[in-house]
This record gives sequence, structure tokens and C-alpha cells, in this order.
Amino acid sequence: MDQLIAELGFLGDRISRARAVLDQHAQSESHIRSRRPDAVAFPQSTDEVARIVAACARHGVPMIGWGAGTSLEGHALAIHGGLTVDFSRMDKVLAIYPEDMLAVIQPGITRERLNEELRATGLFFPVDPGANASLGGMAMTRASGTTAVRYGTMRDNVLGLEVVLANGQTIRTGSSAPKSSAGYDLTALFVGSEGTLGLVTELTLRLHGQPEAVSSAVCTFPDIASAVDCVIATIQTGLPMARIEFLDAETVAACNAFTGEQLPLSPLLLVEFHGSPQAVAEQAQRFGDVARDFGSSGFQWAKGQEDRTRLWKMRHGAYRAILASRPGCTAIVTDVCVPISALAEAVEETQADIAASPVPGPILGHVGDGNFHAILLIRPDDPTEVAVAQRLSARMAERALRLGGTITGEHGIGMGKLGYMSAEHGPAWAVMGAIKHALDPMALMNPGKVVPQ
Amino acid sequence: MDQLIAELGFLGDRISRARAVLDQHAQSESHIRSRRPDAVAFPQSTDEVARIVAACARHGVPMIGWGAGTSLEGHALAIHGGLTVDFSRMDKVLAIYPEDMLAVIQPGITRERLNEELRATGLFFPVDPGANASLGGMAMTRASGTTAVRYGTMRDNVLGLEVVLANGQTIRTGSSAPKSSAGYDLTALFVGSEGTLGLVTELTLRLHGQPEAVSSAVCTFPDIASAVDCVIATIQTGLPMARIEFLDAETVAACNAFTGEQLPLSPLLLVEFHGSPQAVAEQAQRFGDVARDFGSSGFQWAKGQEDRTRLWKMRHGAYRAILASRPGCTAIVTDVCVPISALAEAVEETQADIAASPVPGPILGHVGDGNFHAILLIRPDDPTEVAVAQRLSARMAERALRLGGTITGEHGIGMGKLGYMSAEHGPAWAVMGAIKHALDPMALMNPGKVVPQ
Repeated sequence: MDQLIAELGFLGDRISRARAVLDQHAQSESHIRSRRPDAVAFPQSTDEVARIVAACARHGVPMIGWGAGTSLEGHALAIHGGLTVDFSRMDKVLAIYPEDMLAVIQPGITRERLNEELRATGLFFPVDPGANASLGGMAMTRASGTTAVRYGTMRDNVLGLEVVLANGQTIRTGSSAPKSSAGYDLTALFVGSEGTLGLVTELTLRLHGQPEAVSSAVCTFPDIASAVDCVIATIQTGLPMARIEFLDAETVAACNAFTGEQLPLSPLLLVEFHGSPQAVAEQAQRFGDVARDFGSSGFQWAKGQEDRTRLWKMRHGAYRAILASRPGCTAIVTDVCVPISALAEAVEETQADIAASPVPGPILGHVGDGNFHAILLIRPDDPTEVAVAQRLSARMAERALRLGGTITGEHGIGMGKLGYMSAEHGPAWAVMGAIKHALDPMALMNPGKVVPQ
Repeated sequence: MDQLIAELGFLGDRISRARAVLDQHAQSESHIRSRRPDAVAFPQSTDEVARIVAACARHGVPMIGWGAGTSLEGHALAIHGGLTVDFSRMDKVLAIYPEDMLAVIQPGITRERLNEELRATGLFFPVDPGANASLGGMAMTRASGTTAVRYGTMRDNVLGLEVVLANGQTIRTGSSAPKSSAGYDLTALFVGSEGTLGLVTELTLRLHGQPEAVSSAVCTFPDIASAVDCVIATIQTGLPMARIEFLDAETVAACNAFTGEQLPLSPLLLVEFHGSPQAVAEQAQRFGDVARDFGSSGFQWAKGQEDRTRLWKMRHGAYRAILASRPGCTAIVTDVCVPISALAEAVEETQADIAASPVPGPILGHVGDGNFHAILLIRPDDPTEVAVAQRLSARMAERALRLGGTITGEHGIGMGKLGYMSAEHGPAWAVMGAIKHALDPMALMNPGKVVPQ
């Protein structure tokens, strides 16, 4: 390590072994604990990343990418030590191509800052995981969020990448054309690879036109099944929802307490439509008709920008509201995704399972995608609660697989889900391992994650 | 080979070495010539495919998947001999899940038959490459077509696969959940892999609701730039076009002659909108306004289903109309895709290049995706014309790359584009080679295609 640090002297004070810096890069939003990295580098260019990777490869030192530290599964933890590569100083918008609706960015920029920089162009980047994550991190976990039902996930919105491979070589994947059939889809392979195949140094992102008109509403339902069936019916009518979010009664209660809202304590959908004023008005009306068919009451359209902002601030604050509902607790944030026909069953079974346990677990989710989260609130120093929550989480994963779904809709594998990969993928997991071995034979890129160990 | 045939005796008369069968599987829609395969197998189940692959692996015999034979780049040609695996008897719809808008199918079913089987459900599969290709083949070439601007390509519409790997092992990729962050995106890796990583035996496809209302129009423009600028403006206003197709004046002339239409001989867009009656009416009106801004005249809405059918029949017949415009000729069908801001330049330069050559080459394309084709008409026994067309095609590929695009938007690499892969991907091409080697170390799956040889 000393020799590596010496070789990386060209970074000047942008490489650090200071205890505070190492500590900061050993923390995560998850309950997962890790040892510290041995050092943290703050590169400013692709060339610097390539030199860092080549040096680490020579010395057999693990390399772990770090974005904004908002991962919920411990993706960026240096569990085998090594060098954490912090991309916070590679946070530039390199180019915006309004006609092609593309932006070329560095991985360290956060989604909120990117959208600030795009504001004047009339374009925006839609993927919205809630947290102000870095775009590089979002690509690496194949993140999505509230708008995926309309705009897709990172899978759909990353058109190309620049990646430094484990051997220090820099490659480009994809092109600026909207589509291509030119060989293996390396972009899609790297998106969601959690830094185990290389370090991403540049991303070409698809942008979308800021909608001319936006219309949001809250509507409450007598029970979960009605809310979910309303979503299924809405999707089948082809109504292009921009967002359709589910909150269970417990989540609503936590949000009310946290924000002073006075929403009725029953399952609730937050919906949003984007389009021309006429289109949005028509969609809102049609959605209202469908929702009433499924017993929705308390239907309320957000009247203006201010109302809408309050509504989505509440939604994005739900995680914190839930944390605040049981002071002193931390959360195990689960993240399963099922075929939408199985969603009501999955949510109801999960709710009953949690209700029968001593651990609270409000449920909310991106119901248009079949994706939901139970926020399991545990006292971190109570081993019984931790064990109960882990069993609840395991049963959610098993339930999702039984229903044809996946163990993670958008948070990724990291440390938290590695134990379920074999159950989800069977022999295909070994194929991931073979690809990993082909591209990183020394297993230095974020070791211990994603593939069989 | 004799020993392999003996081992595959369980196929009964579904394995053949008859000259007529071998000849049929040595043909292609392309100008590319190949030797015959040594035998052709017609499996009826995944289990049979797995046994075929295991036997071929034991004997070191190449395996080449065969769908409907509509490839334009010679993908399915057995250029090193071996066993062609013809999927025409694996053509079943295995399950339809209307609530989840999914279908599980075998690879040999064609897109037209799939849509016939879906008709009663109110759902359809949108990817439309023109030819009545097999869905397995479409997945393997990452095909798209007229509707990609709205519904995406095969990349976006294949949710999961069952694949028999080179070692005879069967894996499943993806799940039935609408999205997932569970590890490497193997589905995306296999889609577009042209049978070089394994043989696909089952596909889970996304379906879409049949639009309540459809509205189509033809509009003519004074020049290519106006037509393309109209498309860019339309996309930027966020108008959700279902189709937007470009035909140059030469293509229009060929279509007129072939079908008896009397369209004005100038660049033309065919557009279509899908949605509710109100939405479609509004979109049509808005598009009309944009088109007029760009000098469109001769704007004409198709009045009913019959008019629309005639219009799209003309579009899908354009390839044959162009072939008929020069009797005795075959075509080199080019397929480049560029950022849409570069589309007018790419089309105009290509047109000028073709005009300066002795070979006719009408141009048409999926202009909403930046994707276009010149149909280069050559007398196959005239080596000068073949050489001229190949140079035109090479310059189109180089031009696409110079403009930030790709050498193939939707037809794939096959034999025809292998020579440009290095120019497009640089060192990333070797990464494809490393993945290929990891999954097919004996290079038996469709050898000679996609990766460095």
C-alpha cells in the first residue's frame, strides 16, 4: 500500500489515508458494517482514473468506486480493504446536445445538480430515486424511482459509457445514435454491474423534454387490492402515467406526523401526468374515472406548482418520516419487485408478515413497476430485532421469487442481497461470474459484490 | 459428423442432410454467399436443443441458429459448416399474461403470427421490422423497425430469456417483474448476440395495449433537411409519435410505380399516432402545425383503417418496390443510424455519394431514430457494380461513425458488418471477444460472427 500511495503521488493531496476520510468512506445508509478502505483517491480526469487502476492492478489492491454514498445495500464499502475511488471531483456536465436530447457527464455529478444545469434547456433527466445520488452510482445500481413507469430506469436512459477496465485500459460503449445493433450491448452489461467490471468515467444520458403541463393527484382507496387493481386497469387502458406511487396507511400516518399533512389513514396513490395541457387534462379525467371504479374516495388534484411540490416533497421525505416515527431506530430498507398481477398479494402478505412481528415496517412503492419497499425499523443494538427484520426481508425476497419477481427492483445487490442471488438466477449466476472473471481476472474491482465468491 | 448424426437419432426425421434442406439453409436475403451447413436439426423442445448442443460440443461441431431466414446480413449462414438448428418447429405461444402485459413464446414464432394470437386479448407486440421475421431472430439481431420511436426495440421489449449455453446447460435470464437491479443484465447481453453466446429457446416479451385510436398521415417536404428538421422539432415538443418514416423521392417513385399510388415525387414523411381518440386528434393537429412550419405541403390524413393499411402496406413493400424498379438486380441493404441532429447531413451526403455513382440507391428510414437505409441495386454478376456498392456502403458506415453514430441501427453485424466493428468499438470490441471466449471457449456458437476472429 505504501508503494501504491507513492506511485499515486501525482494526485497530490487528492489521495488520503486520513482517519476521518477513511471513516467517511466506511459509512453507508445501510445497516451493513465494513472495515475502512486503506486509502481514498479523488481523481479529476479519466486519465487519472486509468493511472490509478493500472497502479492498483500492479499491486493487487482492490478498487471501489464511490459516488454520493447513498447506496442502501453497502455497494461502495471496501469490505476487503483497498483503495476507494471517490468521484466527487469528477462532477462536470461535459456537453449538452439539445437537438439529440443527450448530455455527456462525469459520474460524480448528482441528479439534482444535473437537472439544475439542464433547466434553461427545456430538457431534464427523469430518473428519480429520491436520494440526491450521483449519476455514476445510479448507473452502477441500475437505479430507478418514481418516474420509471413513464421514462424507464437507468437501463433505458444511459446510452453510452466510458469505462476504465480492470487492466487500466479505457473503452467506450454505445454511441450517440438512439439505437444500435452493433454487437454485444456492453452499455447494458456495465449498467447495474456495481463497479465490479470497471470504473465508469463518463456517461451519455438520454434527456427528455420538460413537460408542458403537469397534473398530480392524491387518491385514497379502501384497501391495498383496490389501489393496485386501479393501477393495473390504468396501465391497461394505455394511460401514460408519469408517476404512480403507493403508500400504505402506516406510511401515510408517518408522513402526516412528520409534515403536518392530514391525509386519511388508508392506502393511497400519488399520481402524476405529463404532457400538453389538453392531454394532461384528458388523462387526469380518465384516471379519475378508473379510480372511482375501484372505490377511490378523497380524490384530490394538486392545484398548482406549490401543491405539487409539497406532495412530492412528502413522498421523497417518506423514508425520513418513517425513520422519525420510531426514534433511535435505523432501517433495513427492503426492495422487491413482482409482476404487477401479483403485487396486491405480495404487499398484503408482506404486511401481514410484518404485522405478526415485533418490528414496524411501513410499505411504499413504485406501484406502476410492481416495485415496493418495506422500511423495517430496528434498534441496531437489539440483536433480536435485527434478526427478525432480516428474516422478514428474506421472506420478502423468497415471496418475490415465488411470484415471478426479483429480489431487488432498484437498489441493487451490494452486500445486502448477495445471499439471494443464487435463488434468483440459478445457474445464470455462474454466467455472471464467468463474465466477471473474463474482465477482472484478479477480482480487484469492488471485490465481494454481485458475483459468486 | 456421422457420429454426431447417430447421437442425434432421437430427433428421428427432424434431422436432415438432404441437399434441398441444406441448400435452403445456405440462402439468405443478403448478397452474401456461404457454404452449406453439414446438417439441419428441427428441435421441438428446450430439452432437445440442450441435447443437440451438448452433442455438438462433444464433437466440436459448430451450431448456428435459424429463425425465418429474413436476416439481411447473413447472420444464420454456416460459414464454417456445422449444424444449423432450425427453430421453425418451436413456434408456440406458451403463455399470455394480460394483466402483466407479457407473453412467453418459443423463438420460432413469427411476429405476424404472434400478433394474430394476441388479437383477442387487446394487446399486441409492437416491434415491426417489416419482414415477417421470427421473434428469436429479432431478439438475436436486436431488431427494431417502424415503431421503435414509440415502443422501443427488441432491447426494450424482451424481459427475459431461456438460453442453452455452449456447454449444453440451460439458464434463465430476467424475471417477470417489470424491472430488476439483481446483477448483470444478461438478458440485454444475449439480445443482439446473434447466436454467438447460446441458443435462445424461450422469450418473455412485453406487450402493449392495442391503441384505442390510430391516426396516420403522409406529408411531403420540399427537401430532406425540412423533413428531418420537422422530425426533430416534433420530438422536442414531446409529441408521442408511434411511427415516423422517411422516404426519399426515388423511393416514392418506386412505390408509385409498384403500387399505383400517385404521391408527389419529393421527400415524404409517413407518421402515425396511437392513443385515445382525443389524444390522437390533438397530436395530429399539433403535428400538422409543426409540419407546416417546415414547409410541408400535400399533407393528407389517412381517413380510415383501409387507407392506413394501404399506406403501411406501401411502406413495408418499399423494399420490393425498389427491387422491382431495376429488374434482375439484387440489393445491398445498408443500415446506419446517427444522432438525429446529424441525420439530414448523413442522408444528404449519402444521396450525393450515390448520385455520383453508377448504382441506384433509394433511401428510406426510421427517421425518428436517426436510422436509414440506402437500397443499393446491383447486378450480382457485375463485379464493378458490386465493388461500387460495397464502397458506398463502407463510406456510409464511416460517415455514420464520424457523425457519432453506429454502423447498424437494426440489422446487426452478421457477415456484412464485421469489417467495421473495430472502427466502431475500438478496444471495446476485444471486450466482446473476452465475453464470447468466457461463455463459448471452443467458439462453436455461430462461429465467424460478431467478435474478433
